[in-house]
Order: sequence, then C-alpha cells, then structure tokens
Amino acid sequence: MDIGSIILMLAVLIALARLGSLLFQRFGLSGLIGEILIGIILANLVIGDWSIMNLLDVIMPDREAGIEDGSLNYEVVEIFAELGAIFLLFGVGLETRVRNLLSVGRAAMFVAVLGVILPFLFGFALIQVYDGNVNHAMFLGAAMVATSVGITARVIKEMNVLHTLESRIIIAAAVIDDILGMIILAIVVGAARTGNMAIGDVAMVAGIAVAFVLVIMAIAMWVVPEIYDYFVKRKMHKVHEEHKDLEAEESRKEDHLGKLIMAAVVCLGVAWFADSIGLAAIIGAFLGGMLLADYALEWGLEEKFEPITLFFLSFFFLNVGMQVKIEDCMNPAVLGLAAVVIVLAVVSKYIGCGVGARLGDKTLDKLSSKVIGIGMIPRGEVGIIVAAIGLASDAMSSELYAVVVIMAVATTVISPPLLVRAFKKRYPDGCPDGEECYIKQ
Amino acid sequence: MDIGSIILMLAVLIALARLGSLLFQRFGLSGLIGEILIGIILANLVIGDWSIMNLLDVIMPDREAGIEDGSLNYEVVEIFAELGAIFLLFGVGLETRVRNLLSVGRAAMFVAVLGVILPFLFGFALIQVYDGNVNHAMFLGAAMVATSVGITARVIKEMNVLHTLESRIIIAAAVIDDILGMIILAIVVGAARTGNMAIGDVAMVAGIAVAFVLVIMAIAMWVVPEIYDYFVKRKMHKVHEEHKDLEAEESRKEDHLGKLIMAAVVCLGVAWFADSIGLAAIIGAFLGGMLLADYALEWGLEEKFEPITLFFLSFFFLNVGMQVKIEDCMNPAVLGLAAVVIVLAVVSKYIGCGVGARLGDKTLDKLSSKVIGIGMIPRGEVGIIVAAIGLASDAMSSELYAVVVIMAVATTVISPPLLVRAFKKRYPDGCPDGEECYIKQ
Repeated sequence: MDIGSIILMLAVLIALARLGSLLFQRFGLSGLIGEILIGIILANLVIGDWSIMNLLDVIMPDREAGIEDGSLNYEVVEIFAELGAIFLLFGVGLETRVRNLLSVGRAAMFVAVLGVILPFLFGFALIQVYDGNVNHAMFLGAAMVATSVGITARVIKEMNVLHTLESRIIIAAAVIDDILGMIILAIVVGAARTGNMAIGDVAMVAGIAVAFVLVIMAIAMWVVPEIYDYFVKRKMHKVHEEHKDLEAEESRKEDHLGKLIMAAVVCLGVAWFADSIGLAAIIGAFLGGMLLADYALEWGLEEKFEPITLFFLSFFFLNVGMQVKIEDCMNPAVLGLAAVVIVLAVVSKYIGCGVGARLGDKTLDKLSSKVIGIGMIPRGEVGIIVAAIGLASDAMSSELYAVVVIMAVATTVISPPLLVRAFKKRYPDGCPDGEECYIKQ
Repeated sequence: MDIGSIILMLAVLIALARLGSLLFQRFGLSGLIGEILIGIILANLVIGDWSIMNLLDVIMPDREAGIEDGSLNYEVVEIFAELGAIFLLFGVGLETRVRNLLSVGRAAMFVAVLGVILPFLFGFALIQVYDGNVNHAMFLGAAMVATSVGITARVIKEMNVLHTLESRIIIAAAVIDDILGMIILAIVVGAARTGNMAIGDVAMVAGIAVAFVLVIMAIAMWVVPEIYDYFVKRKMHKVHEEHKDLEAEESRKEDHLGKLIMAAVVCLGVAWFADSIGLAAIIGAFLGGMLLADYALEWGLEEKFEPITLFFLSFFFLNVGMQVKIEDCMNPAVLGLAAVVIVLAVVSKYIGCGVGARLGDKTLDKLSSKVIGIGMIPRGEVGIIVAAIGLASDAMSSELYAVVVIMAVATTVISPPLLVRAFKKRYPDGCPDGEECYIKQ
C-alpha cells in the first residue's frame, strides 16, 4: 500500500473541491454545484494519455473498458464519499425531533404528502413511457421526491423570514418529506434488490421500511429518554460527589467528545443495520440521527460532527461528478430528457405542495401557497444519493444518473431567486407580527 | 466493494476502542493504553477458526502465512490509522509557535538536547550489543527519544502547577524535544531507506531533514504572516463594505469551516511532501501544523480539528495493538529486553533532563531537577509511531516493536504518580508566587 499516494490524492481532491466550492459561492450559487463540476472535470479531462485521475492513481471501475475494480485510491474516495453521505443524513436526522414532527400541523403534512406523491408519479410515468424499465422509473421517481432542506432553509435564513407562517410550514414539510422520501427509497431499493416486481414483495419491503421507521420513532420517544435519565442521574450524582468547578467543566468537555464517539457508533451501527435488512445505509444514518435528536443540542453533537462531515462530504460531491460521463451530457437525447425532468420536477412540487398547503390550511391564500410551492422545489444531495444508489445497484443507467444530477443542480439554481420574489410579493411591507424582518436583495 | 461490511467494521472498532479507553480511564490510567490493549486482544483472540477479525473481514498481511496484502477492510484501518497519526502530529504542531520556541530559555534547550541524546545513545548501544543490527538500533533509539507532551501536560494541569518554573521548562523542553525527535526520525527513516549506512548518506539525510525544518520555520515566521496580512486586510475591507452584524457572524463561521479545509490541505500537503523527499509523513504534518500555529487559536483550528482527529485516532491505537503478536509478549527474551529498555528509557530521560536542567539554569536545585527529569519520562504515541514506521519499512522486528509498545505503556503508567510525588516534595506548602495552586491527590 502506497500511503504517500493516498495522502497526496486526499490533499489534491480536498483542495480542488474547496476551490470549486469557493468559485461558485462567489457567484452566489451553492458551493456543492462547484464541487460536482470539479468531479465531472476530473473524471472527463483526458488529454492523450494524461489525466489528473491517472496522476493521482484514481482508477475508476469501467465495465465497458473491462476494468471491474477501481484502484485502492478510488476505493478510498468511494468509502469517504459514502461516509460523507452517511454523516450528512445523520446530521439531518439530528435536527429531526420526533415529538416536533408529530405535533406539526395539518398543513405541513398535506404539503409533504402531496409534494411527495406528485413528483414520484410524474417521474415514474415519464420513464415508463420513455424506456419502459420499471427499476429506472422507480429510481427516477424516488430521486425527484426529496426536497433539499438545506438550500431552502438557507434562503429563508438569509431573507430573515424564518418566523413567517410559510417558512414554518416549509421547514416542517421538508422534514416529513425527508422521512417519506426515505420510506420510498427503502421500498425502491428493496424492490430492485429482490429483482422481480411481484406486488407481494413490494408490499413486504414497504412493510419492513415503515416498520423500521416506526420502531426507531418509538425508541426515540420512549426508550432513549429512559436511558438518558438513567445515565444523567448517575452522572449528576457523581459530579456532585467528586468534581469541583473547573474539573466539572473539563470533564464536561471530555464527555462531549465521548458523546461524539457514541453518536458515531449509533450512526454507523444503525446505518449498517439498515443496509443489512435490505434498506439503504443512509436511511439508517438518518434514523440514527433522529434517535439522538432530543439531546443533539445539549451534547453539542451537530457542532462537533460538522468538521467530520465536512471532511468526508467533499468526496461525496466530487464522486457524484466523477460518475457523470461527459458524453451523456452532450447527448441530445439525454439533454432533452433532462429538460423534461426539470420541468416535471419543478411543476410537480409546485403544484403538489401549493395545493397541499391550501387543502391543509384553508386560511392560506394564493400568494402563501405560491411561496410554499416554490420553497419546496429545490432537490439536492438526497436526490443525487438516491440516483447514486440506483447506479451502484444497476437499477439506473449512466444517462439517467446524469439526468438526475442535472435536475438537482437546475432546481437548486432556479429556486432561490424565485423564492425571494415570491416572499417579496407576499410581504411587500416586510414581515408581519412585529418581527424585525427585512428581505435582503 | 462491500460498503456494508466496512461500515460495520468501523462501528464495531470505534465502539470497542471507546470501551477500552473508558475502562482504563476509570482506573485513572491513560485511555490510549486501553485502546492498544483492545487492539492486541482483537488481533490475537482466535478460537479455533473463529475470530472477531475474520468476522469483520479485517485480514492483516502476514508474511509467514503467505498473506502479502491485507483485505480492503484492513487497508481502511491502516489508512484511518495513518490519518489519525498525521492529524495528531498536526495538532501538536498547531500548539508549537516558532517565536515562542526561539524565545525559550537556555534551561529548556539543555533539558531537551540532553534528554534526546542520552536515550538515543542508550537505546542504540543496547541493540548494537543485543543483535548488532544497525537499523534496529537506530529505530529503537529514535523510539526512545520523544517525550509525550500530552501525558505530562495533563498531569501538570490536573495538579494545577502550570505556572511553576519547572512546569514551564518541562513544556518548552517537550516541544523542542518533539522537533529534535522529528529530526532524528527523519535521519533514521532516510538512512533505512537508502539502505547502506555510509556516513555521507546519513549526513545528506540529516542535512535534508534539518534544512526542511529550518525552511518551514522560516516560512512560518516570515511568509505566512505576509499572506495572512494580505488576506485579512482584503477581508476586513470586504466585511466593512458588504456585511452587517449577523451576517458577519455567519460568514465568520463559514470562514472557520473554510479555514479548517485549508488547514487540512496544508497538513496533508506538507505530509505528502515530507514523505516524497524521504522523510516521514508525520514530520510533514507536524511542521504543517507549526506553519499555522500563530493563527490556530484565532481560527479555532484545534477545536475544529479535534473531532476529526478523534475519529481517526482510535484506529491508530487499535492498529498499534493489532501489530503486537501475543507470542512476542510471552517470549521471555522479549520480556527481558523490554525490562531493560524500560529501565534505560526511565534512567536516560531522568538523568539527561535532570542534568540538562542544572547545566542550563544554575539556580535550579536538586528537587527542581528531579521534577523536570521525572516530568520528561513518559513516552507515548510518538515513540510508537516511530516503531510502527520501522516495522512497516522492515527496519524493526516484530519483537522490537512489541518492546517499544510495552516501554511506551510502562513509562506512561510509571511517570504520573512519581511526578505527583516529586511536585509535592518540591512545593510542600503549595505553589509559590501567590498563584492559587493545590496539588490534587
């Protein structure tokens, strides 16, 4: 094993990903698009025999060229990418409290459910017509489901409209949306793995997925607090007996790092369990995060996990780009399909969520439902992860993978300016309810 | 690639390492000993055909059994272990400011230099007599050099004697000691790689090592501040123009994460460079940390790096243990040698540093020089890293590797209680100079 070559590769890839991210942020775009683009360039920039990938000894598997396994360096990229996705979803889970979820209003529930059903049906139907492959259709539908909470939340935060009714509905709906998306992904992965599409098998996979989510929710609500109480009470007792001011502070810091390790074990453990019962590892990671969500703040888990996630996540977006074949993006058929998918992705969320909002809360007017519909449009990392899982399990073609990446990037770019405009129309005089609120241009 | 098996392995190994660490901490010992022990148990616990390693698909290379390459899972452990060592040394570098180093008194310099020369000579001479292999002798000598700053500093902090003259000398000396240790390691690795031991080659390797350290120090002192000023001034200007309170805060947080990525690139980049010019990667990581030491606090680098280091470091100590063959520890010859090495390691540091202290500062009395001598005794991770590098490059036998691990563990266990006693003798009535100081039992 040539550890020097691996270290060099890590340094170069992290630096390039950062560069791409900064460049795109400078133009007000999401940094992850830059990282994906760097990945595309890296994998497709071949001048004669020369390429950066060869230089870094990153040899990807390529069935057409007869290369079945990637080099160790590429396997490291893949493992880091997978860990990046797992930690990212764990982080989302850490922000998802079961109790808050259950207490959220009708409106968010309607927005989420309709906003999940419509895109899935649109995507599924399109591919059924396009190539008739059920696996392709299921995965494209699933990839169109999940709203990217991150991008929406960032716009809302930047505009300082966090306290408006629309924002609260959007954020709650995005979370439910994630869970529904996970359930759909679980069903789709399970169905693809069992191979044939007998309705009984799909029902069983769906049953396992739903049961898993419900069991984790139940554990999060009833078991985890008991464990917490047990340990905290013992701990409090001990601290009282043994420690004094400064040391208590020190031991609390120690504790936080210990909690971080414990959280990593929960994250990876549940991810493995999900994988081993036929669901996707990221679903487990997400649910693992939900298990600890009630204590994430107190233990500083998110803050502590952020650097670890950041370290691994660059490799995820780079790898997303690396999987894209530039020929596919040049292919008119693929581009045509991508255009249709983008339109369907935008329209299905906009209509699904907009209608859901008005059905769920009769007091919402047209402008409000517009804001909510637009706020739910961006797809991002989760959609891409779904497509990557499909690609890895041969349930997606490289062309469809490229389509999903293009769709995710496009919706991420389109949504923020539209959302800003919609919010401004809804609140032309700034926010209601005395909140200091201004809409940044 | 079976990602599920890798995730399971990571979860189990992290959990076991944590368990070992907690167990040993409960008995007031250093957690890393527990992690090493778990590694030894993992690799040596074979019941018939059954072993945890097989269960986790962690197959280590074993030349005797004809297994040349480890399984992918083991390669992941090795890569994570190497990254753990690199980030650990980077963290030590972040705490080593060149300016402070140069301004430190004669006493610390004498303590460090004599405390490095004596152990190296003792170790070298012992192995020359024992088996006559020059490489073995050099690596054992080098592994006996570096004082473990972490363990000493922790005792000092726990006793609240941070402000005493002895403590300040110990900490300054430990840092110089690290640098000297790195230079010796660089020479030893270089000499082992060139293979033959012509005095000219050794001189050249030594020249490269010293030049590398000096160049990095010069860059840290004169170039990095210029770059910093350039960017900070531009940034300040920008912040002034564009941002307001809350956003400035937000962008500062963004910045900190950006700095973290930049620091990771510097760390890995310099580590790779050191490796590629024939030094050890960890030397590069240490020097890379020194480059950024002046800004580490301001950018929150240490705090941000801590979770990443923690994540990887468990694998380092586990891997340290995994390399130990239990037969070697049962071998009377090895145990005898280990006993001699432990005695030499304790005596050489105690005398070297004690004498160094009195030569460097005539005002120090015998009690003070005793405190300093004892404070410098613990060896730890760095000595083990040196031995691991020797083992990987065939410049150390598995028996000698076991000896170094036993020595590191023993000195780490022996030193703290002795240090507590020595400090109490030196300051029977608590600390001088009005500092609130108490010596915890």
